[in-house]
Amino acid sequence: MQTGLFISFEGIDGSGKSTQARHLAESLRRAGRDVVLTREPGGSPGAEEIRRLVLTGATDRWSAETETLLFTAARRDHLEKTILPALAAGRIVISDRFADSTRAYQGATRGDLRAMVDALHSLMIGREPDLTFVIDADPASSLARGLARSTDELRFEDFGLALQEKMRAVYLQIAADSPRRCVVIDGAGPEDVVAARIADAFAARAPALA
Amino acid sequence: MQTGLFISFEGIDGSGKSTQARHLAESLRRAGRDVVLTREPGGSPGAEEIRRLVLTGATDRWSAETETLLFTAARRDHLEKTILPALAAGRIVISDRFADSTRAYQGATRGDLRAMVDALHSLMIGREPDLTFVIDADPASSLARGLARSTDELRFEDFGLALQEKMRAVYLQIAADSPRRCVVIDGAGPEDVVAARIADAFAARAPALA
Repeated sequence: MQTGLFISFEGIDGSGKSTQARHLAESLRRAGRDVVLTREPGGSPGAEEIRRLVLTGATDRWSAETETLLFTAARRDHLEKTILPALAAGRIVISDRFADSTRAYQGATRGDLRAMVDALHSLMIGREPDLTFVIDADPASSLARGLARSTDELRFEDFGLALQEKMRAVYLQIAADSPRRCVVIDGAGPEDVVAARIADAFAARAPALA
Repeated sequence: MQTGLFISFEGIDGSGKSTQARHLAESLRRAGRDVVLTREPGGSPGAEEIRRLVLTGATDRWSAETETLLFTAARRDHLEKTILPALAAGRIVISDRFADSTRAYQGATRGDLRAMVDALHSLMIGREPDLTFVIDADPASSLARGLARSTDELRFEDFGLALQEKMRAVYLQIAADSPRRCVVIDGAGPEDVVAARIADAFAARAPALA
């Protein structure tokens, strides 16, 4: 398995996906693999600038359609500048969020835009990860964890428990619709227990992806 | 004709389109009409921020695809925040550039992206001006005029005469393809002579647009 491999971590805010993305990156590096750990929105210098543009200011500053265009521009830049070159060099790319985050967020807040979100993805991105870990976690405790973090970017945590519950449902539906790509991981329990679940799932899936 | 009317001015850099957009706005205001004069890229606070993001830095900072996404995000914001509310209030909107500028620029530099540009427009903008004045001007003298202007935003003037000639050809093709929407105006001669040509063309077209 020396070809590139593109892995994303998804889940509601506070689900532990960023922590678990780091754990998998470290474990693969210890095993001698060349890993690029990246994130969205952002992940390349241009995409980080677009991230700042979208995530600062009032939450109603951009319409859902304009916001989706800006995130898609950031994703395109991230893909071109960071992800594809690393994959071409045979590296493993682990991204904390990718297109499923847009599907889950817009799906939970503006379900009527789903066809637009999908068409825009097909037209301008057209690429999915080889493997996606959906960290499934209790919305109430995830929200508490998300809010406890000190951050200027409360953009996604701003909408409360009802949003978290809707996003969880969309994530589980995405995973059900794409069983070859997505693995749902139980996010309950200590960090190292969850990390072990992911490591097991990775070991089970990796041979088929090589 | 008290309903809103959406007019765009297009043409290569230095063709005089911004000057002529101002002339038409002033003449309509003198006639008692309520006119919003706007421009792209930009035309709303959010779109002006996206403009700054795209037009600063190296010209190869964004790929053609990412740049098109950013301009489309700016256009969507401009449409939602400036153009559509003004039209709903029965005002005349005159925009210095609109979607034809993307078609002409990408068509001249990356003709292979035309289908993508059109699909993105249909999906996310889906609106054309009611009337478009294409100011047709000699590429060599237009380029000299464009370069003589003091500006930090040389982004579009950076590519020389060959680009101007290609963009002129794309603009003329767009006008030929959309004869009901587009009027080609001879941009040669003194400002007031060109303004009179536009006023005549407007008077001839306006009744059908009311």
